[in-house]
Amino acid sequence: MTTSLAAKIAREYGTPAVVIDMDRVERNIQRIQSACNAAGVANRPHIKTHKSPELAKLQVAAGAKGITCQKIGEAEIMAEAGIDDILISYNLIGEEKMARLAALMGKAEMTVAADNPTVIAGLPAAGAAAGRDLGVVIECDTGRKRAGVETPAEAVALAKLVADTPGIAFKGFMFYPTEDGWAEAQRFHDEALAGVRSHGLEPAIVSTGGSPNMKNVGKLKGATEHRPGTYIYNDRMQVAAGVASLDDCALTVYSTVVSRAAADRGILDAGSKTLTSDPGGGLDGFGLILEHPEARIARFAEEHGMLDLARCNERPKVGDVVRVVPNHVCVVVNMVDEVVMVRGEEIVGILPVVARGKLR
Amino acid sequence: MTTSLAAKIAREYGTPAVVIDMDRVERNIQRIQSACNAAGVANRPHIKTHKSPELAKLQVAAGAKGITCQKIGEAEIMAEAGIDDILISYNLIGEEKMARLAALMGKAEMTVAADNPTVIAGLPAAGAAAGRDLGVVIECDTGRKRAGVETPAEAVALAKLVADTPGIAFKGFMFYPTEDGWAEAQRFHDEALAGVRSHGLEPAIVSTGGSPNMKNVGKLKGATEHRPGTYIYNDRMQVAAGVASLDDCALTVYSTVVSRAAADRGILDAGSKTLTSDPGGGLDGFGLILEHPEARIARFAEEHGMLDLARCNERPKVGDVVRVVPNHVCVVVNMVDEVVMVRGEEIVGILPVVARGKLR
Repeated sequence: MTTSLAAKIAREYGTPAVVIDMDRVERNIQRIQSACNAAGVANRPHIKTHKSPELAKLQVAAGAKGITCQKIGEAEIMAEAGIDDILISYNLIGEEKMARLAALMGKAEMTVAADNPTVIAGLPAAGAAAGRDLGVVIECDTGRKRAGVETPAEAVALAKLVADTPGIAFKGFMFYPTEDGWAEAQRFHDEALAGVRSHGLEPAIVSTGGSPNMKNVGKLKGATEHRPGTYIYNDRMQVAAGVASLDDCALTVYSTVVSRAAADRGILDAGSKTLTSDPGGGLDGFGLILEHPEARIARFAEEHGMLDLARCNERPKVGDVVRVVPNHVCVVVNMVDEVVMVRGEEIVGILPVVARGKLR
Repeated sequence: MTTSLAAKIAREYGTPAVVIDMDRVERNIQRIQSACNAAGVANRPHIKTHKSPELAKLQVAAGAKGITCQKIGEAEIMAEAGIDDILISYNLIGEEKMARLAALMGKAEMTVAADNPTVIAGLPAAGAAAGRDLGVVIECDTGRKRAGVETPAEAVALAKLVADTPGIAFKGFMFYPTEDGWAEAQRFHDEALAGVRSHGLEPAIVSTGGSPNMKNVGKLKGATEHRPGTYIYNDRMQVAAGVASLDDCALTVYSTVVSRAAADRGILDAGSKTLTSDPGGGLDGFGLILEHPEARIARFAEEHGMLDLARCNERPKVGDVVRVVPNHVCVVVNMVDEVVMVRGEEIVGILPVVARGKLR
């Protein structure tokens, strides 16, 4: 079964095509902004999901305080487009990055994260070159075991180090609690807060993160802002996390069934170079086919999505164009230079993914 | 431990950086061309691995008969650069693709694959628009369960259908045998050959595929050409398959250790948006760190490579720049707009990955 919109997209652009529904995008932007407003925390959306200045501007217009980026290349694109308050939630290292960070400080209010003294030792070079202090938040780990100091004492020591170092300024703390890690985050926060206050420091920013954490937004007493990213598009992971429905999924990959060599299997023209091998934290298969939810995208070659159709009563035929909700939308957007914009059944334009390919 | 070249690359370009050693690239090109020559089959390298016309030209200059592409967007870039004999080893469907295929036929000798009547029914539109016949090879499956007809009888029926259809011409058969599927491929081939001969048809092309299959190249009696791709760079999968050594791996990802929040773990600045979540067919972790082979790239966030250092005696420190051999090099190249070229310890330039981002 091919919808008339799918047929139109295949005819005009060919498949695979990454398609976003702007009605849903706008609805998602409003919904999460309202949730942040209601929780009394500022919204600082993470643009790693969409990588498009146009969409960042929609987020800011809807009330976002600023944005979050994960790397300098993304921030450069966003600052160039006029976004003037940017947190890079990442440990940045190296003189090449410090020179670019200094240039960014001429265009936007910049804050970066740090979780160790080596990173902190490098940052003043950016502040010195920019002629003003670079804001630094201390990244705190409360169970995710990614980046972030593991104890409040370490956080306090790094805050003190930042405050004592010319060229950089202590701005606060950054958390990314696991779904059930909010009580621990509260204990961590309260102890770190008491610690920095004993040194005469006060956090201006206490940031929490994650779209799946929208159900917990505002739960950390003391939090000033939240960094949700994926909510603008949503995906199978967000649906599995219970923070979005399939109707909230604004991005789908339109793909053609190109082979049906046997009764129980078929091939989509979207493989690992389109949908990516991201397992979505243990989801069944590599995407959900809206027209055939019982079909399983079982494995990939680079340009082949291998369908297991054993569970399907109605099976797609060669030439059908289907819509796939990806496991993890952020990594799919990262594969493409542009997406097709639709509103309902209408194609409304092409949106370049300007900040894609900014490897660093 | 950071080598002096790694320090130089970090300083000039920043990390993560995808780096190719041109000495190794040229050696790999020569080695596989020699193996094809020795086996008496033409070399038609698959450019999906490198996506760069410059490298395709080196392959042709070394003796390749033509090239293989997986999609029209790749073929357009290669034809534009002057490559004039191109096989697209894929089922192509849709009028948008047929129009582009017709345009390609004005620039290069084009052959495409097909494994079903629906695909074959669409192809004459390209031939008609180009004013000459489009060459078609029938894709045959011998165990991989991807695309390809499952029986010689189906292959013969499709060959006959192609031969009887104006605007397209039967060119031969395409195989991609599994490593131990060569005896089955031979039986399949022999039966299909007898079948088409009974209709007065003769295959001009019998194509086999795969870099891991270089150990079997020439084993199929009747094969006229081979489509190896990954050999130009190699990766952990090729090493695991026994067709390359680590010294043959021409591409590495230079990445900085940005966090060491606990003794047993660390973070690389290369995550799933750089190294990809490709498991490499069940390899341990998501890449091999040459400086710390006991370290395990255990999991990813988008810009975080989570290191498990439990098995390491010597552990990397924050700021170290390390080299990662990826699980699957083809999908890593697909993430970047350019790669840094080196020869031994010297940086020699930047190579644009021109055909990246051609989603279709």
